[in-house]
Amino acid sequence: MQAQELDALLLGPGADLRYLTGYVALPLERLTLLVARADGRHTLVVPSLERPRAEDSGAGELVAIVDHGETDDPFALVARCLEGLSPSASLGVGDRLWSTFLLGLQASLPQASWRRASAVTRELRMRKAPHEIDALRRAAQAIDRVHEQVPALLRAGRTEAEVGRDVADRIIAEGHEAVNFVIVASGPNGASPHHETGNRRLADGDAVVVDIGGTLAGYCSDCTRNYVIGAAPAGYADVHAALEAAQRAACAAARPGVLAQDVDAAARDVLSDAGYGQHFIHRTGHGIGLEEHEEPYIVAGNDLPLEPGMAFSIEPGVYLPGRFGTRIEDIVVVNDDGAERLNVLDRAAVRV
Amino acid sequence: MQAQELDALLLGPGADLRYLTGYVALPLERLTLLVARADGRHTLVVPSLERPRAEDSGAGELVAIVDHGETDDPFALVARCLEGLSPSASLGVGDRLWSTFLLGLQASLPQASWRRASAVTRELRMRKAPHEIDALRRAAQAIDRVHEQVPALLRAGRTEAEVGRDVADRIIAEGHEAVNFVIVASGPNGASPHHETGNRRLADGDAVVVDIGGTLAGYCSDCTRNYVIGAAPAGYADVHAALEAAQRAACAAARPGVLAQDVDAAARDVLSDAGYGQHFIHRTGHGIGLEEHEEPYIVAGNDLPLEPGMAFSIEPGVYLPGRFGTRIEDIVVVNDDGAERLNVLDRAAVRV
Repeated sequence: MQAQELDALLLGPGADLRYLTGYVALPLERLTLLVARADGRHTLVVPSLERPRAEDSGAGELVAIVDHGETDDPFALVARCLEGLSPSASLGVGDRLWSTFLLGLQASLPQASWRRASAVTRELRMRKAPHEIDALRRAAQAIDRVHEQVPALLRAGRTEAEVGRDVADRIIAEGHEAVNFVIVASGPNGASPHHETGNRRLADGDAVVVDIGGTLAGYCSDCTRNYVIGAAPAGYADVHAALEAAQRAACAAARPGVLAQDVDAAARDVLSDAGYGQHFIHRTGHGIGLEEHEEPYIVAGNDLPLEPGMAFSIEPGVYLPGRFGTRIEDIVVVNDDGAERLNVLDRAAVRV
Repeated sequence: MQAQELDALLLGPGADLRYLTGYVALPLERLTLLVARADGRHTLVVPSLERPRAEDSGAGELVAIVDHGETDDPFALVARCLEGLSPSASLGVGDRLWSTFLLGLQASLPQASWRRASAVTRELRMRKAPHEIDALRRAAQAIDRVHEQVPALLRAGRTEAEVGRDVADRIIAEGHEAVNFVIVASGPNGASPHHETGNRRLADGDAVVVDIGGTLAGYCSDCTRNYVIGAAPAGYADVHAALEAAQRAACAAARPGVLAQDVDAAARDVLSDAGYGQHFIHRTGHGIGLEEHEEPYIVAGNDLPLEPGMAFSIEPGVYLPGRFGTRIEDIVVVNDDGAERLNVLDRAAVRV
């Protein structure tokens, strides 16, 4: 906070709060807020109803816990937690705190200036500790085991939604505590990167993008592979070969000192050279940890130098509207001399 | 908006956006924002990647859709959607929009004034249309069917978590598309109203609070009943009888023109008269619809007069720390001369 010239952080339910205190707070219309001050006087503000859960989390060993009843003004309570700071203090607010709370805080502290708390918290969370890398590796191994079971689920005549439910069951069966998303995008649906599942029935000749993730012991998995039912559509083999080369090039580019944007460029250059550049319509990757998407983003314009411990996806894709889509995604962690792929499945499209 | 003196609403992913446009947007770090202007010039700002999903939703029949690429400034695009309004326009921001977006908007529109969009959207969403009441009724019937299966799952020696997983499976099996929460709070855990499930093993003589809900066709269910394994703990029968009377009194009090706070008082008075007032530590209820918790809140200090179509929970509880808890919850909808209970289970604790 001192380096960022912030006097305090105001963090609601979510990953920052969990990271700093261990408390997994419910996202409620009643305010939960960690007031973390640069001078070390920290308070966790919770609704009275949540006090037992907050105390059970062990957060009370790190910070004072205060609570507000059903008809109390929680913003006045936060203001009291900031007593002794200048009225024009510089406050960092959690990126995902609901606006209804930020508006209440701004009304209660009208002279303060407001910035994103991630200026501080991303610096803490972006470089994973060894126990976090272990957790990401266990999650990656679990989602790899789910992918190994996908071919048996893909049969012409089944709907994407039916396959998706079976995949979700296996995400839990392989050890995740939650399913975060299941994308089963068949045939032309594959050309919409965030298509989830629909009522389209799989058919012979479909390319199918399967992008799945869950949370295991608090940390996220996220892996995409491609499947083909019967004979691949025209042009598919060329596209997938170029995509494999692009994903491999980006994985090889990731190492300490390389800029995030250069990893993006490594994938993009291969696809552009192969003539598919205009069909690679998204960034190459996102950081991953307690959240599915977090810093660092592997995107043009991000000149962040990579450091050991940074974990992110490498997931170039090619999308041909009306025809098919393909995407290959692994999670990698930067180490001392390169990057470890946590997902270790073969990159090839699997014919079923 | 005109009545509230707001020039525009800025609504991110969530219930307001779904209610107004039908678009179920993903909550992402990339900005999705409906810019709804009082002058009727509405625009849906989406990430390029989400454009296919936005178009598939049919929202494009109601509003213009514009998209921003991975390296564009989405806040500048929002500012363009507001062109022609005064720089000091009064803007209503979605209550659950992430603060990272509100801070970006505030920096991009430094002279605007900012209020909660719910000043407008709650007025629309709070009074349910007939098709919404039908949807809430179907969701309530589904969760009632799950409660009818709970006694068979409660056996001494099983953990709360084991029971919870079985309950979650049945929430889906009875037609919900999502499980929102499963509380199985046994013995002393019942005294923490938001205890979810833990590793405590059910034991003979336990009172168990089971509070469960899901989403069915977009609308939420939420119902709490109490179960006793073997002989009830000392004092339980008296507590539960008082609670039944309190919940019944609040249901009877709900009708057009009565204030929300008076429904709360109806339950609270019964419990206070029975000597349990200090153990009823939360409000009596919350509105329900596309969100689990929404307006109107049934709480002291809320002088909102009830109107036909308003839907909310009535869920008084009594919590005795170290001993047990009890809560009875039904969803009701105000009609012309009272309120319909959508959950129709008997209120009595079920002995298993």
